[in-house]
Amino acid sequence: MTDANAAIDFYFDLTSPYGYLASERIEDIALKHGRSIRWRPILLGAVFKISGARPLLEVPLLDEYSRVDMPRSAREHNIPFTLPDPFPVATVAAARTVYWVELNDPGNVPAIVHALLRAYFVENINIGDAENVLDVAAASGVNRDTLAAALQDPAIKARLKDAVDEAIETKVFGSPYFIVDGEHFWGNDRMDQMDRWLHSGGW
Amino acid sequence: MTDANAAIDFYFDLTSPYGYLASERIEDIALKHGRSIRWRPILLGAVFKISGARPLLEVPLLDEYSRVDMPRSAREHNIPFTLPDPFPVATVAAARTVYWVELNDPGNVPAIVHALLRAYFVENINIGDAENVLDVAAASGVNRDTLAAALQDPAIKARLKDAVDEAIETKVFGSPYFIVDGEHFWGNDRMDQMDRWLHSGGW
Repeated sequence: MTDANAAIDFYFDLTSPYGYLASERIEDIALKHGRSIRWRPILLGAVFKISGARPLLEVPLLDEYSRVDMPRSAREHNIPFTLPDPFPVATVAAARTVYWVELNDPGNVPAIVHALLRAYFVENINIGDAENVLDVAAASGVNRDTLAAALQDPAIKARLKDAVDEAIETKVFGSPYFIVDGEHFWGNDRMDQMDRWLHSGGW
Repeated sequence: MTDANAAIDFYFDLTSPYGYLASERIEDIALKHGRSIRWRPILLGAVFKISGARPLLEVPLLDEYSRVDMPRSAREHNIPFTLPDPFPVATVAAARTVYWVELNDPGNVPAIVHALLRAYFVENINIGDAENVLDVAAASGVNRDTLAAALQDPAIKARLKDAVDEAIETKVFGSPYFIVDGEHFWGNDRMDQMDRWLHSGGW
């Protein structure tokens, strides 16, 4: 059973290529089913400490496959994509930025997420660097100085930490990861299944 | 580009739930695109020694997800499925059986593969036990005594070993795993993408 009022919780790390690919498709799927989206950037490093998983490109064989599969999956959906260098990067500042925008200008969250991900995966701007994050956010209408101060605010630091803790408690273990109506879907390649699930009201 | 004459190489471990789910769908996809199938049972344990990957149900968080996802993915396609007990099992005898049938009665390979997988994932028959493998094969028209002797034949042992080595050389790292026209697709949830790839002639 589905609850048409419920949001899709969309968990992703801002350095995750498959999270980026998912971010370019999730709004169409949500719109189709009359759902909203809760954008939940997380830090996969913290999650991997629990699961013992390793970053994609550190796993023998999977790394080679991923280097082919990521651009192929992007091409299928006409999503511009280049594996950035450096990759991966720490996304603490970028994720804090999203949660700060959520608090201060919630309607701007999708735009900020897209701006950060496209900066990294299209323009190869290193969003692991807080200065670049500030530049990207400023270009999306955020006051650069206000955000720069906010990124050091203990309340914002705590907010990201809480979001990661909540993800771990909810058993999120990868990126992208979706929860809708209590159903968990892991991976970019499960978006079609989630779409079918929402369409049919479950099975 | 696709080559309409080429087979789909379908790699799977006979103890792999997602391999089983794929086995129930691969023939429809192959038929649709006029492709044959090369059924390649492998031993994931040997592959995981290279990749460092662990069996699904030994990975924290992923295990819980999989226990929900496997039956859900089965239900979507109306495939009968029960996670067997014991699980996983060693599939040396079962895999050798498939390669022996391939040598001696190649047209019977799909039937033997289905019989073994359905015995395990539908009827909870432990195909890690060679006696059960012989029973299942006998029910599919194989001479039980001939097969029992063949399973100890160094030539058949070598044939499975060669198949696993070939899979590793070809960079196969999971189950199910598909190679068609040189394109690699990993995972039950990538069958739809492979289907679209074959339909469109690549992208």
